[in-house]
Amino acid sequence: MASDRRRPDGPFDLSIKRVIDAPAALIWTAWTDPEHVKNWWAPKPWSTVGCEIDLCPGGMFRTVMRSPEGRDYPHVGCLLELVKNEKLVMTSALAPGYRPAPDPVDGVDLECAHIPFTAILTLEEHAGKTTYSVLVLHKDEAGRKRHEEMGFYEGWNSALDQLIEVVQGLGR
Amino acid sequence: MASDRRRPDGPFDLSIKRVIDAPAALIWTAWTDPEHVKNWWAPKPWSTVGCEIDLCPGGMFRTVMRSPEGRDYPHVGCLLELVKNEKLVMTSALAPGYRPAPDPVDGVDLECAHIPFTAILTLEEHAGKTTYSVLVLHKDEAGRKRHEEMGFYEGWNSALDQLIEVVQGLGR
Repeated sequence: MASDRRRPDGPFDLSIKRVIDAPAALIWTAWTDPEHVKNWWAPKPWSTVGCEIDLCPGGMFRTVMRSPEGRDYPHVGCLLELVKNEKLVMTSALAPGYRPAPDPVDGVDLECAHIPFTAILTLEEHAGKTTYSVLVLHKDEAGRKRHEEMGFYEGWNSALDQLIEVVQGLGR
Repeated sequence: MASDRRRPDGPFDLSIKRVIDAPAALIWTAWTDPEHVKNWWAPKPWSTVGCEIDLCPGGMFRTVMRSPEGRDYPHVGCLLELVKNEKLVMTSALAPGYRPAPDPVDGVDLECAHIPFTAILTLEEHAGKTTYSVLVLHKDEAGRKRHEEMGFYEGWNSALDQLIEVVQGLGR
């Protein structure tokens, strides 16, 4: 049990991986500049109408997603580890400043706010292309299952398609 | 509300502060070497029968406290930030590797395991003495209150008395 908890990509985890035809530095920029994040974070027809990033350990990673019906859902996470152009770790289990996150509120927070998770983004560049990996850790198998059923793969992959468009624009 | 959450030492927080007649490096050693931690972590008549520390961001900070009745309570936290001899941040809201912490189990975990918290240790040395501060962040006022009623001040201050004994031994 203890070893399973620590094993990444085990039964508690979800992940996506894709090779992107762009250098890691452009992907990093698209991930860490709020103006760029607004252009890809929420899978269409949702949009991202707000984004605030304090790019340091303990710093804020805040987005506001707007539903097609026009309802806004703010989401605040805490950045944990940052290695420029290589690795970014953030969690929804902590608020900015490392404070344990408040309990989500029904009807106010997005359903996914009820599942604490940690996302580890890894960028590995090789010959101008970059292997883009996101590993999402949950506290248990139920958390992973719920996140998956909520449309994790569709959501993160659609957002990644949008991210790639942003990165291609940056590369021109 | 949002600003209160971010303000350290606000209504969600507990803290202790004391000037210790020793250099910061000795206090750091007593805090980060498992063999020393075992000698001060649990306020007597409790004892600390196990300790494992992986001194890096995302690393494990694990202790096993033994009650006077001989029952063992393991507790696992995650280290977040480390500035040698100056600052250490750890949280019980995450398990090692930044995974959101599992739910505590009644009767198996210590009561305080049911209160997620983040502890920020700060050491400020001046003329051979060190101001020792611990700030403990909770997700809400209820968490702070419960932690306080559980004996936060007595427990952390007794442990600090024991820590100072360890540090004095190191300084001889």
